[in-house]
Amino acid sequence: MQALGRQILAEFFHCDGQILNSVDAVKMFMQEAAAISQAHIVQSVFHLFNPHGVSGVVVIAESHFAIHTWPEYRYAAVDLFTCGEQVDPWKAFEFLKTSFKANKVMTMEIKRGQMDVKGTELHYKPPLIKTNKDLVLTEASA
Amino acid sequence: MQALGRQILAEFFHCDGQILNSVDAVKMFMQEAAAISQAHIVQSVFHLFNPHGVSGVVVIAESHFAIHTWPEYRYAAVDLFTCGEQVDPWKAFEFLKTSFKANKVMTMEIKRGQMDVKGTELHYKPPLIKTNKDLVLTEASA
Repeated sequence: MQALGRQILAEFFHCDGQILNSVDAVKMFMQEAAAISQAHIVQSVFHLFNPHGVSGVVVIAESHFAIHTWPEYRYAAVDLFTCGEQVDPWKAFEFLKTSFKANKVMTMEIKRGQMDVKGTELHYKPPLIKTNKDLVLTEASA
Repeated sequence: MQALGRQILAEFFHCDGQILNSVDAVKMFMQEAAAISQAHIVQSVFHLFNPHGVSGVVVIAESHFAIHTWPEYRYAAVDLFTCGEQVDPWKAFEFLKTSFKANKVMTMEIKRGQMDVKGTELHYKPPLIKTNKDLVLTEASA
């Protein structure tokens, strides 16, 4: 059984609450995490909620990185979903753990799209692009 | 132990490949799924990839719904991450299962942000809004 993708579900506890409540900081760290893991950023959307908490997603050519923060509990839920062999989501995880100053973490890695296709190569979605600048999408709607 | 959120990881196999390759259809179904589950849509981003496959995220006030499709395998990976008691992600799941004509599904529900806060009420991020129209965010950057 091969898998089309893999997903790290990361629980970041005992983080820096101020960082978790800064939409600019959270966005910057999530985009940096994507770059560090060799992912290709397609689009980023981040929102700061009232009274507190940030939600955001970095859509990458290789799937997505998502975050939801609860600064009042110094907690962040992070998903790192990637496909292909070139992207290493664990590099993103380590970077974010340090960036958010998480003193307690829990992780789970899950295979997505497991299929019995022995002998044939699985196709990954984003083999055509090199960098964010020359990213070519056939259609985009937001 | 209470949890701040819950997340359904859904594997949709044996779907309608044409639907999975239509960015308009996938976006429409994902937004409809959010509405059916009583979630409040903040922003939607969807992309059609070359040669095929759709990636998209509906950011909701209660977290996010995400999808990645592999039409060539008639497969879609769907995440339904919600917080609070008012949103029922399983309604979204049932709607999407029907919409994508999935003949085989696998699901996993995971608690996110489990904490020992007995006796106090957990705060959910989005208690202030009613509809998409009167959604008030203190800051947004995309």
